[in-house]
Formats: sequence, structure tokens, C-alpha cells
Amino acid sequence: MTLSIPSTNLSYPNVAKAANNWQGLIQTYRPYLPVSENTPVVTLLEGNTPLIPARAIAAKIGRGVKVYVKYDGLNPTGSFKDRGMTMAISKAKEEGATAVICASTGNTSAAAAAYAKRAGMKAFVVIPDGYVALGKLAQALLYGAEVIAVDGNFDDALNIVRQLSENYPVTLVNSVNPYRLQGQKTAAFEIVDVLGNAPDWLCIPVGNAGNISAYWMGFCEYHTSGKSSRLPKMMGFQAAGAAPLVSGEPIANPDTLATAIRIGNPANWQKAVAVKESSGGEFNPVTDGEILDAYRFLASEEGVFCEPASAASVAGLFKVKDRVPDNASVVCVLTGNGLKDPTSAVDHSLNELKQGIPLNLEKVAGIMGF
Amino acid sequence: MTLSIPSTNLSYPNVAKAANNWQGLIQTYRPYLPVSENTPVVTLLEGNTPLIPARAIAAKIGRGVKVYVKYDGLNPTGSFKDRGMTMAISKAKEEGATAVICASTGNTSAAAAAYAKRAGMKAFVVIPDGYVALGKLAQALLYGAEVIAVDGNFDDALNIVRQLSENYPVTLVNSVNPYRLQGQKTAAFEIVDVLGNAPDWLCIPVGNAGNISAYWMGFCEYHTSGKSSRLPKMMGFQAAGAAPLVSGEPIANPDTLATAIRIGNPANWQKAVAVKESSGGEFNPVTDGEILDAYRFLASEEGVFCEPASAASVAGLFKVKDRVPDNASVVCVLTGNGLKDPTSAVDHSLNELKQGIPLNLEKVAGIMGF
Repeated sequence: MTLSIPSTNLSYPNVAKAANNWQGLIQTYRPYLPVSENTPVVTLLEGNTPLIPARAIAAKIGRGVKVYVKYDGLNPTGSFKDRGMTMAISKAKEEGATAVICASTGNTSAAAAAYAKRAGMKAFVVIPDGYVALGKLAQALLYGAEVIAVDGNFDDALNIVRQLSENYPVTLVNSVNPYRLQGQKTAAFEIVDVLGNAPDWLCIPVGNAGNISAYWMGFCEYHTSGKSSRLPKMMGFQAAGAAPLVSGEPIANPDTLATAIRIGNPANWQKAVAVKESSGGEFNPVTDGEILDAYRFLASEEGVFCEPASAASVAGLFKVKDRVPDNASVVCVLTGNGLKDPTSAVDHSLNELKQGIPLNLEKVAGIMGF
Repeated sequence: MTLSIPSTNLSYPNVAKAANNWQGLIQTYRPYLPVSENTPVVTLLEGNTPLIPARAIAAKIGRGVKVYVKYDGLNPTGSFKDRGMTMAISKAKEEGATAVICASTGNTSAAAAAYAKRAGMKAFVVIPDGYVALGKLAQALLYGAEVIAVDGNFDDALNIVRQLSENYPVTLVNSVNPYRLQGQKTAAFEIVDVLGNAPDWLCIPVGNAGNISAYWMGFCEYHTSGKSSRLPKMMGFQAAGAAPLVSGEPIANPDTLATAIRIGNPANWQKAVAVKESSGGEFNPVTDGEILDAYRFLASEEGVFCEPASAASVAGLFKVKDRVPDNASVVCVLTGNGLKDPTSAVDHSLNELKQGIPLNLEKVAGIMGF
């Protein structure tokens, strides 16, 4: 196939909306955040992530429903955790901390390590041995964190870092740190800023339940300030094998391939229940099979590569799609980048790598089906 | 360490600069691009990537030099290739193509697969067997491309896809496709839009030499249009084992751990030489050891995780730092996300994962040095 030669328009009119000088979410949303002129802002210019129209997902629902994905995997360390961490680390620095610690299934550890090291602090990360995706482990190590893998699950790891922060001079930056949710709420602000109003539904994966609480706080604050005329229905989705908010009781041995939401006893349990009730929302389970179907669909139909846990929001939307109101607007939150977990992608792709092919035109053309 | 309870400012004044409704680079820079009203815009809202102040790098140079990193790893598929691919796929679709093909060390294949599948086309990817990083392979497969690994290096792969596109109904989207560089030039526009002028120096990794050519085109077009008052000195850096532009002759067996620039015979050779001459720039080699040092420095001092090839720009800047003029502004281009290559991060981190640690407060505290 021959290509025509492109000709650039030579009149050079002014561009309507050029790249903006985004200064990170603390500077952008300063009036809404508990910071002062004395807070040293530790930022990697997180936030301002794309809200991507998802026409293939919308087509599966029909009835005029509009769907967007909030692709928070394009934050600097590859997940929404950066939103909370710019706040937590900036405040820790303001208070004179020189070391921080967190328990993590991986995304928090990457964010904590990056922001802490940028701020000149030590970073300690406690992870459940054997249950952290390769990309996340790689990040924490390269950012220069001390990574300690304990014999236990996420809930055990969280318990021990709580005790460490109470007994030693090290600041806890898990989402029990109140500044984390303050930063995370800015994702809701961004959605309203772009859409001009809140969506009708927000679909979101739920693990430790901090993010659903933070989004709701953001939507409520923007609503109070007159930035939006409505509040969304908050639809939280948990992996079926790690769904304590669905069953109503903690799960001792949570199990799902979606490691980022493999949590049996969410730290923000009561907040999340309050969000569900205030918003008229729901918690629903999605199976690992449904998560993987949505994960592949997002990549191969929308061109968006998220980590398996993120796809729980879209898997959930598919599950309850017949209950979405006609012409509604729906935002699905994609919390982390698919590159965080390359092993899952290789293992669960429907396509296979064709290896050892000789450098021969007809051979390759044959494989291509010509 | 105890945390104070945050109080949110309740006055809710208007935010000065909220999240903008970025519509991707074709819509943003339309007057500068060879598109018309008839071009179907295939976009993942690429571009508008952060220009992050790099104070730790600047501190190693001193003399008032300001350094920024253009973190293009935060594009939707994790590399600068998305800039060219939104153009190449949109134009291919306009021209009626139903299938695209590329040779790739990995980043191009991920971008081609994502944009082609979003456009409803088939994507074929030819890679050199054994020399593509795990994250990139994972992406291409999950996006649903047909991935064919041939016995040969990148240059061999490029040869065969050229022949395939000449003999079969499949559009070539390698950077020999003229639309690719048109899209990539927008990174230069963004830098000028944010800084208010071109930087004094641009440091950039050079493999196939398309990106350095595209940046120069962008800086020149913005300069012509009055958007900047100067042009940067273009400083290209190649891996020492794959440095044909430094030596002046093709390398039959290029060798470097920086797989994304492991190219012995750049397709854009003559363009790159012209850029060097027009800008008063240079090509210099950096060893794999220097690349790894910069890679670790970026992560552990700046909190920025790029792929090894990207760090060639910073390794190069360190190498020639005594020649940077006093008070100059320098932008280092980071072409790809570190998550593309998690194996390199684990292998080359100076920190080690501490595994199998029992759930015991004193034990963990002891490991932490308390």
C-alpha cells in the first residue's frame, strides 16, 4: 500500500488549547486541600490523567449510554496511589519526618518509594511474600526503597507497619494516613472539570476501600462548591474471592488474581459503607473470569491496558449493564497501569507469540494469512 | 509518629487552573499536522506529558543550569511512540487500510497494536527474537496483535516488514511512514508551550533516529511561527555498542542492554545528521554502565522510573555537563516507561528484596536498622 506524502499547513494559526503547564494536583487544587504556604510540595506532576471515551464498552450497553475510563495508570508511578502520596509525603516532610513506611500489594509501595526518595527521605515497604506483581516490585527496588517481604497477607503486613510506626520514628503512609484520601479525592475533581458535571454512575474497584471513599469526598466537595449539579451513584466492585463488603464480614484468606484488591479486611470499611448508603450505590462481586474478560476487552477493543484489578470496574459495569439508565454517563475508574503486571498479560492473552520464524518473506506472509 | 488531623479549607474558591479537557495531540495541534476534516481521529488522548523539574540532576551540574525531564513514558501505551501512532493509524484509516504492520524493539509494536485495534484494524508486529523487554511483549499480545518473532535483529525485521507492505495489503507504520514523525514533533511543541520558549539544549536518546528528527522539525516549525525565539542545540546520545551515528558507519551486530536503541543502521540516518549540523549539536556515545547509573539516579533521586534506553539522555548530559553554558535550560527526553522492562529494574537495582521475614515486630524493626 503506497502512502501519500503529507503536507503541513504552513499558515501556523494559533493553537486553541496548547499543552498546559500542569503543576501537579496540590498546586492545582490547593484551596481544597489541607496544605499551607509552609507545606513543601513534593510532586511528580501527578494527576490530570486522561478521561478516555470508551465507545466499544458503550456499544455493549447501547441505549445512548456514554462510557469513559479514567485512566489513572498514567500517573507518574503508574497508579492512582500517586494522588494520595504527593499529599502524604508533602505533609510528612512538613512535619519533619525523615523516613516513611507502608504495607502494600505493590502500588502504594511504588508511590511511597518514589515520592519519599524525591523528598530525600528513607522509604520502607512491607509486602506480602509472593503476592506482588513483578512491575511493582521492580519499581520499589529501583526507586531505592528497603523492601521487606513478610510471611503473611496484606492485612498482616498492614498490622505490622501500624505497630512499627507507633514504636519507631517512621511515618505511616498507608491510606489510614488521613492525607492520602485528601489527595485521592482530586480524581473526582478532574472528572467534573472535564465533563462539566458529575457522571450518573461511577464504577470503581474496591480493595482497601480508600479510593471509593476519596472519590465520594471529592464529588461531595465539588457539589457543595457549585461545580456540579448532581452526585453520582457509587458502584463498587470487589473480586468474588475477596469481597468482604459484599458478604458483610472479613475474609481470612482472600483469593483473586487481581492482586491489587486482594484484601480481606478493608481499612476503610465503615467509610465505604457510608458512601454506598449516601449515594444509593451498591457493592457487587465479579469473578476472576469476568475480570479477565474485561481486562482483555479493554486492551483489544479500546486500546487501554490496565492491571487486572482495574478491570473489575468494567467487569462490574458489564454485569449490571441492564440497570444503567438510558442516556446515562458512566465513568469506570482504571486504577493502575497494565505494565505493573506483565506476567498476567502474557499468561492471559488469547494471542500467542509465534517464535523462531525464519527471515523469509513467504514464510512470514503465510503466518499472516496471505 | 503521630499525625495531625487535616482540615479542608471550606471556602471553596475557584481553582486557578483545573484539569483541562485535553483531546489528544491531533485535535490540539491540528493546524500543524497533515490532517483534514475527513481524517478519522484515532486517539487515546496521548501527549501532554509532564515536563518534570529535575533538581537532583541540576545539582550535579550547578552553575545555575535548569534541568527538566520530558517524561513521555506517561503516554497511553507507555512511550513516545503513541505520538506518531495516533497520526499513522488515523491516516491509514482515512486511506481505507484494514491492517497495519511494523518491525519493533517493542515500543512501536505496543503503540501500533493499541491504536490499530482501537481503530478496528488488524495489527501485525515483527520483533527480533529474544530482544524485546517483557512489558512490551505483554502489551502487544494483550492488545491483540499477531506477534511474530523472527531470527534476526531489528534491522532484519525492518527489512522484511518493508517487503511485506510492498507485496501485501498491509500498511507499514514504522517511522519510515512519514506521518509518524509529524505526530512525534508535537513533543517539541509541548515543551515550548510549557517553558514559554525552546530550551538551550535538548538531550535525547538516538536509536532509529526518528525522534531527534521529529523534535527538530517541531522546534523549527514553532520557531517559524513565532512561538519561540530560539532553537535548541540537539544533543543525541547512543549506546556505545550501538552507535553508528557516532562512528559514521552501520553496526552489523549492535549490542546494548538498552534494547529500545539497539539499532545498527538507523532508518533516519541522513535526517539525523542534518539535525546535528543545523543545530550545532553532537552525537556522543554512553556506555551501558553510564546508562545504568543514570537509570538508577533518575529513580532514586528524582523519583522517575524510565526504561534503560531513556536514561541515555541523562547519562549523556552527565558526560558533557562541563560544557553546558551557565544558567542554561536543558530538557532530557525520557522516551519510555520503566515498567516496560521490569526485569532490568530487578536485575540492576542496588537494593535487594528481603524475603521470608517472619511477622515479628522486633525482627522487622531490626532489618530496618532500629
